[in-house]
Amino acid sequence: MLNFTFHNPTKIVFGQGTLNQIGSEAALYGKKALYIYGKGSIKKNGVYDQTAASLKAAGVELIEFEGVKANPILSHTREGIALAKREKVDMIVAVGGGSVIDEAKGIAAGAVMETDIWEFYARRHKLQSALPLLAVLTLAATGTEMNGGTVITNEETKEKLGISSPYLYPKASIMDPTTLISVPADQTAYGAVDAATHLLESYFTQESNYTPIQDRYVEGIVRTIIEITETQQKNPNDLTARATFMWAATLAWNGLAPAGVGKWSTPNHLIGHSMSALHDTAHGASLSISLSGWMPWYAEQRNPGHWDGTDRLAQLGKAVFDVSTAEETIDAFRHWFRSIGSPTTLSDIGVDDAGLVKIAENIGHCAPLWGLPEYTAPFCEAILRRCR
Amino acid sequence: MLNFTFHNPTKIVFGQGTLNQIGSEAALYGKKALYIYGKGSIKKNGVYDQTAASLKAAGVELIEFEGVKANPILSHTREGIALAKREKVDMIVAVGGGSVIDEAKGIAAGAVMETDIWEFYARRHKLQSALPLLAVLTLAATGTEMNGGTVITNEETKEKLGISSPYLYPKASIMDPTTLISVPADQTAYGAVDAATHLLESYFTQESNYTPIQDRYVEGIVRTIIEITETQQKNPNDLTARATFMWAATLAWNGLAPAGVGKWSTPNHLIGHSMSALHDTAHGASLSISLSGWMPWYAEQRNPGHWDGTDRLAQLGKAVFDVSTAEETIDAFRHWFRSIGSPTTLSDIGVDDAGLVKIAENIGHCAPLWGLPEYTAPFCEAILRRCR
Repeated sequence: MLNFTFHNPTKIVFGQGTLNQIGSEAALYGKKALYIYGKGSIKKNGVYDQTAASLKAAGVELIEFEGVKANPILSHTREGIALAKREKVDMIVAVGGGSVIDEAKGIAAGAVMETDIWEFYARRHKLQSALPLLAVLTLAATGTEMNGGTVITNEETKEKLGISSPYLYPKASIMDPTTLISVPADQTAYGAVDAATHLLESYFTQESNYTPIQDRYVEGIVRTIIEITETQQKNPNDLTARATFMWAATLAWNGLAPAGVGKWSTPNHLIGHSMSALHDTAHGASLSISLSGWMPWYAEQRNPGHWDGTDRLAQLGKAVFDVSTAEETIDAFRHWFRSIGSPTTLSDIGVDDAGLVKIAENIGHCAPLWGLPEYTAPFCEAILRRCR
Repeated sequence: MLNFTFHNPTKIVFGQGTLNQIGSEAALYGKKALYIYGKGSIKKNGVYDQTAASLKAAGVELIEFEGVKANPILSHTREGIALAKREKVDMIVAVGGGSVIDEAKGIAAGAVMETDIWEFYARRHKLQSALPLLAVLTLAATGTEMNGGTVITNEETKEKLGISSPYLYPKASIMDPTTLISVPADQTAYGAVDAATHLLESYFTQESNYTPIQDRYVEGIVRTIIEITETQQKNPNDLTARATFMWAATLAWNGLAPAGVGKWSTPNHLIGHSMSALHDTAHGASLSISLSGWMPWYAEQRNPGHWDGTDRLAQLGKAVFDVSTAEETIDAFRHWFRSIGSPTTLSDIGVDDAGLVKIAENIGHCAPLWGLPEYTAPFCEAILRRCR
């Protein structure tokens, strides 16, 4: 256990029938909102109607802004910022999955900045404020509904960069598991992989070698995610499984897992983001590929002063899969990824050896911004060759 | 998994050497603080000097108010309220354990009320505001450093009542595990029992019958508490064990364990508070006595529509003690209580059968305020007879 600061002020309103609470939560922050969403699926499943009605009934005027992409892009974020400034909105209301909320965070920050928002993502500008943000989550995966993080892609420079700020925690997030019923099997799988990876990043890379509370927290949630992913795929209407996963994904990335573990890093997110930046790979899919190669690399390390990857993997496998060795743990994860339909190799997403080298170069370029300068292009090539 | 709202805005600053951060945290809320503490142990271990210096360096003037009792009492709370009003302080700074922080919450609320503060504890007055509260924790146990709850005793009416409000979450809590080094073995045990009981109350009484995330959260922290209590008693200077327990106790009662479990209640706190109100029993000691009688009563219930206590106890025992049956789980808890020096019977605290009846009557009197009207005096007598 090492020193930490934990401060997560987001209010979570969780459960069936809670969509109509967005109005009263938003009305605490003003009378005019930028209402941001994706490609219109919320108009098919009733989420748009219910949330817009709740907001209007609470006296909140809506300026609509649609068209957020699955991997949100900088140019669209800039459009949203311009609209928020022009309309002088009091707040941002994001209705959608992690991409919509992440872009909404960029807009909430950019709307009160003179500087271009990319300066924030590129870590050359530190936020001092942001517009209040409220979220209605319709896809469980990224945990952005209860943290200060945001990731977007600069489609010109092919950089996918993430950053966090205390000003970007949503004031409140509405989490109604009935919105997940229409999530298809592949998105359900990618969400599960994303949430599990969030928990595993600090578990594998942490500085401290004695963190029983955090270890058990991670192991318990990962085990639960694995137990209920196929249930959701087979029975999309199983609201108990949907609700359990929805809360698991939030708890996976709300700052509790790494609190007290000391320094840690997110190598699999770094690697996965470069796959997505170059190939528009779904975020969760990129992570199951990365982990399938990164875990064996990690297991083979015998780096004095660092954890022994075989011990850590064996502990995880015992708690999550009831297996005994690091090798069995890695096999069990690969088997789980495949069983839920998430890829484990670069060839699964059509990337050949030349493509592998380009991904390694992209990672090497972005790595210093992620605090992982040792992830140079040649270093990453060696890891990625295990993802073939 | 059932609906819930979770909102815990307290900032936690955790770790060795963090006492000097109280000044910068407090300065965010004004320039004059009521500085409240207990019987002066903080003057012996340096906590007073370090925190007072930090506050003064940050420009915060201190109005000192000492003498909080281990089970804080209403008359002293009223004195603090009068002083806070007279001095027109901007905030309350509590330096101590759960008792000091709980009384500080009463003062923070009372300082902005016209009504007498007991009306709040007796649930006849609902808070609309309170002074900002900052805490420096020096005894890990109650979790009050990261929740909106407060318990005090009305020494005239012999009622020990607790209540919570969203206005009573500390703005920030400083948690330095070095402050725990001077905590004696008995207080260490009582803190461990208190924290474990906090986790078990919702685990045993919850409405939902499918909560794998919450179950594993509880089981993981309880197991950790049991693993490290004797370590702390044998090696009071073991800062890793102290830090681990300190964070465990906070996580035990910060609202996460019961989030999503539906309705739940705190029967062992109800029972224990009556023991303390009548016999000034240490809070943790009262809980190990209560649980030693309540668990077997719970196990023997076969109440249609409710959980089967034997199943629940067996699940807990498997996860925490590696045992198989409800009976073995109860035995393992009693054995643990005794091994760390916490009592398991009423005779351990000198209460005979006549005293038992009086405790049952006190419980029956307070039970409706705790939302447990079925805990009538005769009903409680039957449970307490198992605590002999």
